[in-house]
Amino acid sequence: MFKTIEWTEEGVRLIDQTRLPAEEVYRTCRDYREVAEAIRSMVIRGAPALGIAAAMGIALGVKQSAARSVAALRAEFETIAETISRTRPTAVNLFWAVKRMREVLERSLAHEGSEAEKLAAARARLVEEAQRILAEDIAANETLGQHGAALLPEAGTVLTHCNAGALATGGYGTALGVIRAAVAAGKKIRVFADETRPFLQGARLTAWELAKDDIPVTLITDNMAGHFMQQGEIQAVIVGADRIAANGDVANKIGTYTLAVLAKENGIPFYVAAPLSTIDLHVASGDAIPIEERSPREVTHWAGVPTAPENVEARHPAFDVTPHRYLTAIITERGIAREPYTETLKALFG
Amino acid sequence: MFKTIEWTEEGVRLIDQTRLPAEEVYRTCRDYREVAEAIRSMVIRGAPALGIAAAMGIALGVKQSAARSVAALRAEFETIAETISRTRPTAVNLFWAVKRMREVLERSLAHEGSEAEKLAAARARLVEEAQRILAEDIAANETLGQHGAALLPEAGTVLTHCNAGALATGGYGTALGVIRAAVAAGKKIRVFADETRPFLQGARLTAWELAKDDIPVTLITDNMAGHFMQQGEIQAVIVGADRIAANGDVANKIGTYTLAVLAKENGIPFYVAAPLSTIDLHVASGDAIPIEERSPREVTHWAGVPTAPENVEARHPAFDVTPHRYLTAIITERGIAREPYTETLKALFG
Repeated sequence: MFKTIEWTEEGVRLIDQTRLPAEEVYRTCRDYREVAEAIRSMVIRGAPALGIAAAMGIALGVKQSAARSVAALRAEFETIAETISRTRPTAVNLFWAVKRMREVLERSLAHEGSEAEKLAAARARLVEEAQRILAEDIAANETLGQHGAALLPEAGTVLTHCNAGALATGGYGTALGVIRAAVAAGKKIRVFADETRPFLQGARLTAWELAKDDIPVTLITDNMAGHFMQQGEIQAVIVGADRIAANGDVANKIGTYTLAVLAKENGIPFYVAAPLSTIDLHVASGDAIPIEERSPREVTHWAGVPTAPENVEARHPAFDVTPHRYLTAIITERGIAREPYTETLKALFG
Repeated sequence: MFKTIEWTEEGVRLIDQTRLPAEEVYRTCRDYREVAEAIRSMVIRGAPALGIAAAMGIALGVKQSAARSVAALRAEFETIAETISRTRPTAVNLFWAVKRMREVLERSLAHEGSEAEKLAAARARLVEEAQRILAEDIAANETLGQHGAALLPEAGTVLTHCNAGALATGGYGTALGVIRAAVAAGKKIRVFADETRPFLQGARLTAWELAKDDIPVTLITDNMAGHFMQQGEIQAVIVGADRIAANGDVANKIGTYTLAVLAKENGIPFYVAAPLSTIDLHVASGDAIPIEERSPREVTHWAGVPTAPENVEARHPAFDVTPHRYLTAIITERGIAREPYTETLKALFG
């Protein structure tokens, strides 16, 4: 089985998601700037995976830091954190990881001992913490998967969008974790995967990782999902999330809002699967979630081949916001939240 | 300006829509089988354009027929009509054109005169009729455009899907005809064009022909339309049709149903623009319209480059059906129809 991300002595090792499924190649980021660049260029993507990558990038930066004083290390930490935070604005896991790593840094520096001992402790603890974040994420997905599997039918077709699988997390996946758990429990689940333009995460990543697990998957273009819902061929929709606001509004890959509207119109349950690290109680509603606009070139070209006339104007919002009223439930590692989300999400953290 | 299709002494000349926008090349079909193959392989597409191509293909086949008796010519007509009818099942204009050409054949053969004179008359009249169908289609689009232009706002952004433009018709276009007429009337209309996977008619054809006319166009992926509606950036949706049932249900390019649901949810008017030749009063509702399934390879590859793992299963319904309850109006060359469509559509033919 592939590893989405791992800590090695040489640096942070990633499977290169821009080259899947044609090639299964790994890339090792040897300093934090390379980690930031890997995030920006989508070598790694998916909210939970970005949290892990951010933590490992920070650990790598601090480990390699030449700082000889607590003040210098703190300053360097902030430089690293700033570089990593600036890569992608929507997925909250990035900022969640930075905050968690900063807390570990401060706890390490607060221990008794010489300045050199504090610096050594901080470096060691940040590396441990990044690895712990990875391990916890996999465990969270497995638990979340168990909770969610109970919601899926004994047999049926589940539609998913983008990739909320092992490739979007430390392993196992959120939306695909629910599907994996349901299949492991003996349910007869087939998956329809939206190809997910423009980056084709569904075609390139979801189809690839489900095929590896022998879970039946059928690829469709994004604009076919409504038709198959209307035809009664889809029994549930399940997606991941990049950020969930306190009121349950969900920022996720562009196209998610459309699926939620279609599911509601066709009386099909619409589930969001995400770990607590994706829930941002500091953001009251989806209106306040920043939506990344990526390069129009990602819309007008595929594999270097133009799909449109030269110089055509294009837009590329990478995410949209699904208002909470469209959700059937949010599936987390601490259980399942339903309306009123302002209360139920808060309670999960209790 | 380009010509989508024209009758020449050498055969039926088409702009090759599979090679746009990279290359503006024309192809001449020198017999009816080449016309049928051009339809099947989407060198020409769009319901009204298919009606014209079918008529010209039949005219070409009959003109080249070696038949020396009325019985032999009738038999040959049916062979030609069968070959052309088998290419694509959804767009009714193909069958409409076959029926119209058959009526002209019979009228020609019913005239007084020798067998040789009847054959000569039939050959000449079918060629004339095919050219008349082309001319009538352009005129219908221009009239339809005038009717529809009045429905668009003085200024705003109109979303369209696939290509219902000059390339989908004899010229001018249905949905894009309405936009052209509105712009000509001084309205400040911008267009958002869905790229329209998998064949990318929006990216390749709509963006191309609107840019040629200096009508501002912005390309988006299909899954972005809902987001821009939600953001208040779209004031109207207008699409063409491949077949309209007697009750107003509309078969059109896959993804149309999704846009109709999204438009309703966001309180945005949803218009269908089509000539009477696209309305099939013999089909009571959309359930009875055959939906073409095309090759999954068109989903899993773009320009020869795989977009998905080898051997992944894929589906490719080329059209979907939008129930009439989602439509704001159907715009035709005889005026605008609204609910109850069963009465208003029938009245258009009265």
